[in-house]
Amino acid sequence: MTMTTDTGHRNGVDTATLFATLDAVKAMPAAAQFQFRAHNEWQTGTHSRTTISDYFGVGEEREHEHVFTFDADHPAVLVGRDNGPTPVEFVLHALAACLTAGLANIAAARGVTLTEVRSTVTGDIDLNGILGLQPVRNGYQQVSVRFVVAGDASEDVLRSIVEQSRQRSAVYDVITNGVPVDIEVEVA
Amino acid sequence: MTMTTDTGHRNGVDTATLFATLDAVKAMPAAAQFQFRAHNEWQTGTHSRTTISDYFGVGEEREHEHVFTFDADHPAVLVGRDNGPTPVEFVLHALAACLTAGLANIAAARGVTLTEVRSTVTGDIDLNGILGLQPVRNGYQQVSVRFVVAGDASEDVLRSIVEQSRQRSAVYDVITNGVPVDIEVEVA
Repeated sequence: MTMTTDTGHRNGVDTATLFATLDAVKAMPAAAQFQFRAHNEWQTGTHSRTTISDYFGVGEEREHEHVFTFDADHPAVLVGRDNGPTPVEFVLHALAACLTAGLANIAAARGVTLTEVRSTVTGDIDLNGILGLQPVRNGYQQVSVRFVVAGDASEDVLRSIVEQSRQRSAVYDVITNGVPVDIEVEVA
Repeated sequence: MTMTTDTGHRNGVDTATLFATLDAVKAMPAAAQFQFRAHNEWQTGTHSRTTISDYFGVGEEREHEHVFTFDADHPAVLVGRDNGPTPVEFVLHALAACLTAGLANIAAARGVTLTEVRSTVTGDIDLNGILGLQPVRNGYQQVSVRFVVAGDASEDVLRSIVEQSRQRSAVYDVITNGVPVDIEVEVA
């Protein structure tokens, strides 16, 4: 397998731009203040649809290049119609994607070329919680990530890149440490 | 607007099946043990793709009716190519979808017909954390949910349905209270 190893674009990461971005934020820390947003509309039953498009960052309102739309639902066994994954499955996707993006960036910054990154994220949940039937928590009791990683570095180096990604992952932080959530309601 | 208010399918929720499911789980609590899963494969740069299909629940391996596939990426301003939302945006989607599904179920169980449920979820994040430039957390510092709800009940009742959904939301629990995450790495 021939890998692209020019320093400009290792792992598909524009490392020159990555380092330039780090320097720019170092010089102007306020540029790193972001607000992300999701707009959801109930369809029927447990089915809802989210649109993701606008966000704030680097000092101004921005839009993704596309408007992204996602459906969530429950499967029939959870009294839904399976129009999309369950909300809790999207949390697992978010974790896998965050750790994987970090891996590619960190490997590129360290001059390591990756050839494969796969992961399976599992979440164990006792739905007696959300059903209000037993005094157990509503959410996952345990989440596990299993990575398969290959690249042109030793096993120790590849493991240290995964570890650094964990230490710098936004979603890992949210899931392991929690975040305050406030809810406001307008009755129309 | 004419609303379907037969007790069998209020809000698109099959309430008879909902109550039957509650009774079935009451009689066999182990049926509520679920494991959800996401399978992710790195594409290039910060772009990865997740497949969601298999899960375990009600005592056996199951499959969603469709295989769901989602891309995540960073926008150009975060040195990606905007092939999908960022991982942290999917967390906001998961929260909106979870609270909204709960709202529809709880309203149906209480005999309330909803005509509208919309929400915007925002997450404030200081990316100096993931960039390793300042001693701030990697994840969101604050998440806020703004609901607009309409239905055939008083404002107090509609607010109490949102509150009950919050109290029984799996994703709200994960995000506010955190979950242990373990990571294993196989070097291929």
